Amino acid sequence: MTTVIRGDIVFTQKPGYFTVLEDGCVVVGDDGRVTEVTRSLDDLTLHGHYVLGECIPPAGGWTTPPVPPHWEPGPQVVDRRGCLVIPSFVDLHVHAPQYPMSGLGLDMELLQWLRSTTFPTESRFADDEVAETWYRRFVRRMWRVGTLRFSAFATLHVGATQLLMRLCQEAGLRPVIGKVNMDRNAPEDLRERTSDSLDGTRLIAETSSTETPDVGYIVTPRFVPSTTPKLMEGLGEIVRHFELPVQSHLDENRSEVEWVRRLHPDIPTYAEVYDHFGLMPEGRTIMAHCIWLTDSERELLRERRVWAAHCPQSNLNLTSGLMPVRRNLDAGLKVCIASDVAAGHDPSMPRQIVAAIETSKAKTFEAGHEKDRPLTLSEAFYMATKRPGEFFGAIGRGRVGSFEPGYDFDALVIREEEDNPLDMSVEGRLARFIYDGDDRDILERWVAGRRIPEPFAR
Amino acid sequence: MTTVIRGDIVFTQKPGYFTVLEDGCVVVGDDGRVTEVTRSLDDLTLHGHYVLGECIPPAGGWTTPPVPPHWEPGPQVVDRRGCLVIPSFVDLHVHAPQYPMSGLGLDMELLQWLRSTTFPTESRFADDEVAETWYRRFVRRMWRVGTLRFSAFATLHVGATQLLMRLCQEAGLRPVIGKVNMDRNAPEDLRERTSDSLDGTRLIAETSSTETPDVGYIVTPRFVPSTTPKLMEGLGEIVRHFELPVQSHLDENRSEVEWVRRLHPDIPTYAEVYDHFGLMPEGRTIMAHCIWLTDSERELLRERRVWAAHCPQSNLNLTSGLMPVRRNLDAGLKVCIASDVAAGHDPSMPRQIVAAIETSKAKTFEAGHEKDRPLTLSEAFYMATKRPGEFFGAIGRGRVGSFEPGYDFDALVIREEEDNPLDMSVEGRLARFIYDGDDRDILERWVAGRRIPEPFAR
Repeated sequence: MTTVIRGDIVFTQKPGYFTVLEDGCVVVGDDGRVTEVTRSLDDLTLHGHYVLGECIPPAGGWTTPPVPPHWEPGPQVVDRRGCLVIPSFVDLHVHAPQYPMSGLGLDMELLQWLRSTTFPTESRFADDEVAETWYRRFVRRMWRVGTLRFSAFATLHVGATQLLMRLCQEAGLRPVIGKVNMDRNAPEDLRERTSDSLDGTRLIAETSSTETPDVGYIVTPRFVPSTTPKLMEGLGEIVRHFELPVQSHLDENRSEVEWVRRLHPDIPTYAEVYDHFGLMPEGRTIMAHCIWLTDSERELLRERRVWAAHCPQSNLNLTSGLMPVRRNLDAGLKVCIASDVAAGHDPSMPRQIVAAIETSKAKTFEAGHEKDRPLTLSEAFYMATKRPGEFFGAIGRGRVGSFEPGYDFDALVIREEEDNPLDMSVEGRLARFIYDGDDRDILERWVAGRRIPEPFAR
Repeated sequence: MTTVIRGDIVFTQKPGYFTVLEDGCVVVGDDGRVTEVTRSLDDLTLHGHYVLGECIPPAGGWTTPPVPPHWEPGPQVVDRRGCLVIPSFVDLHVHAPQYPMSGLGLDMELLQWLRSTTFPTESRFADDEVAETWYRRFVRRMWRVGTLRFSAFATLHVGATQLLMRLCQEAGLRPVIGKVNMDRNAPEDLRERTSDSLDGTRLIAETSSTETPDVGYIVTPRFVPSTTPKLMEGLGEIVRHFELPVQSHLDENRSEVEWVRRLHPDIPTYAEVYDHFGLMPEGRTIMAHCIWLTDSERELLRERRVWAAHCPQSNLNLTSGLMPVRRNLDAGLKVCIASDVAAGHDPSMPRQIVAAIETSKAKTFEAGHEKDRPLTLSEAFYMATKRPGEFFGAIGRGRVGSFEPGYDFDALVIREEEDNPLDMSVEGRLARFIYDGDDRDILERWVAGRRIPEPFAR
């Protein structure tokens, strides 16, 4: 049945402005897709109408039976007047097994933090009980903060990765998830044999499409320093064979970039290493960070139509650098905003939107960037909804992040905990939610036209 | 009666490290002050003990009656094992009437934001009903986030300011609050006659000490551009006469600094304008922002023992600049962390602690600051507890922000919403709360040895 969601509708068709329909309607078809956004539906549509039926046979007689006179009921109307209705958030870079360590070790930089805090935490996911406990909490938290599609790194453990996929399927979320691949420069208990790494990847890629049909698989080499050429080559073959998407890290930290240069002296840039091994398939690749891109890397990413996942909170926490976001946007990169939990400590995309805006402002105090126009709220909102949502469309899993016709209706219904009587505009209320609201303000979460209840509620 | 709070005690005596007592005790005397922090109390102390009494008269006989044998009960023990017990937060720069507009207008810089968003909001506080509604929410929010002492700007309205003071008194919070003074460069409904501004100030300063004894008055010229020399002179006299503290803004935005220079061409620096008019009384002045200090201003602030309220979130939101926090600390300034709600959008001090750390990291990408060591978590925690808490000691309202003997027991009891079984240290749990916790994790709030219930609960 058609569903009409009525409320204060806000979304971003374009980065430069919000599309706002105060007391408007989103019309959602049987298939969970938006068919129309409108200021109001007429009474006939809303309450149903009488169909007269067909009495005069067409020339040549009836080919299908004539429609008898009947009452056609109106759609189901979900009345959320006074609430905001916005696209739910999409996070293209998050590490599910790092959720337990949010906020830990952040007085360090990347490579030291990986060794001291991240690897020991991830290694605990060999234990099924640890994985079950924390992945349930992670999935529930993503639900709570309204991030209903995402692209997640798991650990290298096959069982725990499959578990995470099952939990997402069960919860009604629709992410893509990848088992991490790493066969060099890792502590012993997180270093795979190359063949095991490839076998495990192939196994999940093959089985997940039937076992967890709403959860996609994404090939996930941790980053160049963790993956031997042989492993990257094998993963490239898997990507080609199964036409899978890829996610990894790129140009996050200056020491890391230098390390990659030393590991691959024959390949000019970090990005080209991935590309060399077939790990940058066109229109279905996510690269996280992209802070220290060279011009030629920028050009390569543009050509490959890569999503550049900007992780502002993480980049500050690990003193990695400030992405030149305006420059990357102007260069035509598909920049989206991502949490990078737990180098980003907060899974909430509103917090990441704010961090991206703030970081773009901080950037203007860096030499040579004084004229870089900071991100506006609507731009950053776009980069956390429609821009990353296009990734799911590109891999055939439904376009999300906007309310334009044809988009899956993935949405949040928002009501401030306390009403705000200072004549606040719809955009003002959205700004207040983004900057100072939290999950308590989210009344409902919708995925592909269906309301999703809290998963694993205690 | 003596109270013993038992739990995982964490505080910062010095900026460089946390003092941690896993399953320790804070002993609090009758007067609400800490007498001792200890790993454990012996059974005698905890459960009471038998006092034998004095039987043999001293040489010269009894001067006071002898103590008869009796049972001396132990102190009240508040068992919070498994919870963190930390000093509550202190915020030395917050604008109470801006709370309704958190998150609004932040695509602008300071002077434009004041005109378009701030002044229209503040002018609404002429209406008692608006003031009552929003000040109740503000006070409840401060309680919720665990900021139990603070220094707040109200508006210029005498009635609304007194109301805010009464609400804080009623709620059990112990801030200092000032009616804002402004008699130039403001919209008509927010521009006072100079004499009215001085009369209103004097009135509240005189009456508040009896009407709201736990809430102090602080003289509050908005900033130099808003206050004529005549007003500043008059306020300086009030400060001297009543020995009052002062709060204002200093060197926040480059256009603002330039404006002050044009308004007062005969006085070399912005800071010296305040000092010239007696508005920088030694050891009882708070200056917010202090981003664009000259060396001579830095020296003046050090001499006057000014609290420099660093407002990192606000400074990013309004693209004001990044305070050179390490340089200011090294120069001996008393730098504390403050929210500056609503240019800072989040009243929660943990969020501001994180913003301060992140901003200090962003600063290292600014030319000439590459070697500025970023703030560590313990440093930033100190700057949100003990450092600003000293201000209350300096003005005779009780030292807070630490658990050293003699400090008022102002504290929070923290329990993560979900237990965290990954062998996490006490400091790790604190880090997780600071970075990713929220008010739901705060079980109890204590002010001067008394538990404070939620004010104005609905």
